Amino acid sequence: MCELLGMSANVPTDICFSFAGLIERGGKTGPHRDGWGISFYEGKGTREFKDPCSSCDSKIAELLKYFPIKSCIVISHIRKANRGRICLENTHPFTRELWGCNWTYAHNGQLKGIKKWDTPHFKPIGTTDSEHAFCWILSQIKERFPKPPKSEKTLWRFVNKLASQVSELGVFNMMLSDSKVFYTHCSTKLVWISRRAPFGKARLVDNDMTIDFSQHTTENDIVTVFATAPLTSDETWQKMEKGDFLVFKLGEQVYSS
Amino acid sequence: MCELLGMSANVPTDICFSFAGLIERGGKTGPHRDGWGISFYEGKGTREFKDPCSSCDSKIAELLKYFPIKSCIVISHIRKANRGRICLENTHPFTRELWGCNWTYAHNGQLKGIKKWDTPHFKPIGTTDSEHAFCWILSQIKERFPKPPKSEKTLWRFVNKLASQVSELGVFNMMLSDSKVFYTHCSTKLVWISRRAPFGKARLVDNDMTIDFSQHTTENDIVTVFATAPLTSDETWQKMEKGDFLVFKLGEQVYSS
Repeated sequence: MCELLGMSANVPTDICFSFAGLIERGGKTGPHRDGWGISFYEGKGTREFKDPCSSCDSKIAELLKYFPIKSCIVISHIRKANRGRICLENTHPFTRELWGCNWTYAHNGQLKGIKKWDTPHFKPIGTTDSEHAFCWILSQIKERFPKPPKSEKTLWRFVNKLASQVSELGVFNMMLSDSKVFYTHCSTKLVWISRRAPFGKARLVDNDMTIDFSQHTTENDIVTVFATAPLTSDETWQKMEKGDFLVFKLGEQVYSS
Repeated sequence: MCELLGMSANVPTDICFSFAGLIERGGKTGPHRDGWGISFYEGKGTREFKDPCSSCDSKIAELLKYFPIKSCIVISHIRKANRGRICLENTHPFTRELWGCNWTYAHNGQLKGIKKWDTPHFKPIGTTDSEHAFCWILSQIKERFPKPPKSEKTLWRFVNKLASQVSELGVFNMMLSDSKVFYTHCSTKLVWISRRAPFGKARLVDNDMTIDFSQHTTENDIVTVFATAPLTSDETWQKMEKGDFLVFKLGEQVYSS
């Protein structure tokens, strides 16, 4: 299995603190030593960093721990391989372009039989069931909406339906973004926390780091963080239930089912 | 205008030395301070690093100067913006998936009227003429070959034809890879050098660095480097002429026109 980390915020925010916690699980406090990756949206563009080695030993991960890349949407993943060998093309997050937008996706779980599902518009580059599911979802969206639908809710409902269909094949804890909103689906484990004024302090579960968020924020900031397991020990994380599907925009929940 | 750097090699090779020369041109020895990017192929996967700031001031570029990522195909670009504002989505190289392969592309030059050309299968994310040309080329390939053609030469000839068509709109110095081979088209300036045994020493044009390639290679290595202008002062670079189109595979030239 793997671990996921995501963020949706209303101002470009760095994720150094949460990422520092996550990467400890890539070989130190967790067994996820088979690669890691992180994508940061900046406007319509994305920056992506990936390594098919353990995050706790990665020089690039070490740089990112202290290099504050500010973004409103982030998706990150550390991998414990089960389907698909350890290599760069099997390392999450995966990205594709649809409608002139970057779509980014990461998945935790296994999906039995997904490779029989046809993906006419997007082909997997690697061999994971995760990337196949992503290509299927995007192919379905492109098939149904050759151009973006006028109402964004129409799209959110359709993505919800697709995520439910995929989850019938197994475990589908998923994070996805179309560069505008952040989608997440829970099968077994996903938690989230919205931080806003008054900001307090927090301590990481996975190492000794603490942070005082009030030193790094203004009173209008809303920063929502998603993870497969709580990253801090002294805050209350919301637990998602099996089948929950949420959409966040600029840190705020805008759709749930 | 911009500067390009590319590599095709028969063994995974790092490009630290050439990259160290290139990034000096991003603000120090050259005026290309409007962003930089580099893509490394590792098998079917790619690692991409981008920054919409000047490469000579970039922390990530500094890391890559000394962090030997080994690859058989590399494409890099430093930008002096002319069309499209300075932002991440306008930063080269650009990538798209076709046939389950990562295609990577970077361009130097301007193309007048390219935005009127239809790109049915791939849409630009940013606003550069360069990315539009890339989406047009890939759309044409997908339209002509919904599946990869059996003969690779058929594909190379078709890419050659498309590159010639695009170059009629202006200046089209271009580097492209489909993860298998390295394509390059010259309008005004492109040079290349194939290094093989016996390996010698070389000195960068743009800073004081020298290297003894024999310390870093075995006698079977073939490493071909492409750039908009020679990166070393004591080697003989081959100059491409207007309209030249070359394909390299594992460091060796396999097609020319």
